[in-house]
Amino acid sequence: MKINQNIKVFAPATVANVACGFDLLGLAINGLGDEIVVKVTDQKGLRISKITGDNGLLPKEIHKNTAGIAAQAVLDHLGVDIGIDLEIRKKMPFGTGLGSSAASAVAGVMAINEVLNRPLTKKELLPFAMLGEQGADGAYHADNVAPSLLGGIIMCRENATLDVHRLYAPKGLYVAVVMADVQVLTKDSRGVLSENVTLKQHIAQSGNLAGLIIGLTNSDFGLIGRSLKDVIIEPQRAKLIPNFYEVKETAIKEGALGCSISGAGPSIFALCENSLIANRVGAAMQAVYRNQNINSKLYISTINLEGAKRC
Amino acid sequence: MKINQNIKVFAPATVANVACGFDLLGLAINGLGDEIVVKVTDQKGLRISKITGDNGLLPKEIHKNTAGIAAQAVLDHLGVDIGIDLEIRKKMPFGTGLGSSAASAVAGVMAINEVLNRPLTKKELLPFAMLGEQGADGAYHADNVAPSLLGGIIMCRENATLDVHRLYAPKGLYVAVVMADVQVLTKDSRGVLSENVTLKQHIAQSGNLAGLIIGLTNSDFGLIGRSLKDVIIEPQRAKLIPNFYEVKETAIKEGALGCSISGAGPSIFALCENSLIANRVGAAMQAVYRNQNINSKLYISTINLEGAKRC
Repeated sequence: MKINQNIKVFAPATVANVACGFDLLGLAINGLGDEIVVKVTDQKGLRISKITGDNGLLPKEIHKNTAGIAAQAVLDHLGVDIGIDLEIRKKMPFGTGLGSSAASAVAGVMAINEVLNRPLTKKELLPFAMLGEQGADGAYHADNVAPSLLGGIIMCRENATLDVHRLYAPKGLYVAVVMADVQVLTKDSRGVLSENVTLKQHIAQSGNLAGLIIGLTNSDFGLIGRSLKDVIIEPQRAKLIPNFYEVKETAIKEGALGCSISGAGPSIFALCENSLIANRVGAAMQAVYRNQNINSKLYISTINLEGAKRC
Repeated sequence: MKINQNIKVFAPATVANVACGFDLLGLAINGLGDEIVVKVTDQKGLRISKITGDNGLLPKEIHKNTAGIAAQAVLDHLGVDIGIDLEIRKKMPFGTGLGSSAASAVAGVMAINEVLNRPLTKKELLPFAMLGEQGADGAYHADNVAPSLLGGIIMCRENATLDVHRLYAPKGLYVAVVMADVQVLTKDSRGVLSENVTLKQHIAQSGNLAGLIIGLTNSDFGLIGRSLKDVIIEPQRAKLIPNFYEVKETAIKEGALGCSISGAGPSIFALCENSLIANRVGAAMQAVYRNQNINSKLYISTINLEGAKRC
């Protein structure tokens, strides 16, 4: 088996749910994510030698660390037992609804696969990354992991079987993400959700999910805009996010196609049909928080079509 | 205004819901539907002169007849007041879940539009056909009306705004419909439905709707098959249809991509990837009923891509 030395991989942050696709739809963005630097050593076994960018909050024990669990799962699957040190460089915040644990899990599987000279395809890595993500939040849904790994906009037909499909991302589509400096834990954010929805809500939401898929496929920005609505999850989670509706209304007023909560929040994303609009929308969203004396960060990105990569 | 004499129009039967698209998705089939023959007369006003094929059950009063309501709505919209006699020839049964009232409504608007030399496009006729359909069952959903009018497989993003979109119908796709000789009224069939669904059911169902749209777009028969599932409506309505699960299992066993209730039932449809499979599936489904001494009719059809037409 050929072993590659000095591997560095990157797995991007992701926006999950995308308004109408709760637990099923996600997209990858640029500029934020997890980097892992791998060193092959003579001492057998997988270790996390160093973690930076986490303010000392992430565990280094393999079986407790999202990247570690995912990386170990690939090694176990392949029956490989060599010495590997991982240095994890978190280049994104966690607890913000941008798929931090998914990026860790994906970077973990990518790191091992690149060291071992790609014995598996990206799609074959997916279940192992899912094990890492599941270790982080207990749930098994691929709406962050799949786009972080594969890139683009990913629709998960069924999470249990990882029946995932890449949608066409129209040229020009931009994402503006505003991240307020407040923390919402995914488990709290799940806790507020009712176990039931009305049949009427189900019909409206699934019509919008269908409309979004058709709109993306046909580069029909009008249809994308009409479809980017969440009548089920957003009304329940909005209260956890300061000034959510004001930020959203501002984004729409400034020309965003749609605006909703990224994943479990508190990050808020807006999809826009070009970079000019995205910049204007993002600045206006951030201004809402500035006026409330809430610190926030703004990220403007195209859809990341590459996903996780060696770098 | 040019007036065309001796117009005859046809509007096809439709399969609505299509397993995972309750109130939102429908497709047009061949061979069954409503025909209307129009005679322009000197006596002003719209009349229904004759109805055949209805066993005397349908009202001839314009404001009580689905085709009459829809036809009158077009005349009112255009401000036209000439003498028109409609002869309605029902070439399909009603109360069977194949969109009989929708076919009537669509034939009604088509009849007027053809007599008046097409002042409106088919899409512009849609709201008037909807008024006829609404007169029949009180609900406002376009999943039968839109495919009967426009042809093909139609996804309604939102019924209130008639935001309807035609999906690609893969070459070779066939529909087998088995209609048992029992009656289920749409209002009874709606009555059994719970007003609530679980969030889990919503996620599963909308994932399947998304999968079906992607599968159709990409002619991915495997994905179409995995997506043709109804975890919400079918379990509630199946009890109204004799031997439903036996018929369904038989269809799948014989190679159907999927099988579920057509509209409100009792017709059962199966989608198949070619005519050979559709014929085998249809015969096997019918055999289930024959073994129970239940009369049934079988229709094998491609997707009707033309929709309502002058003939």
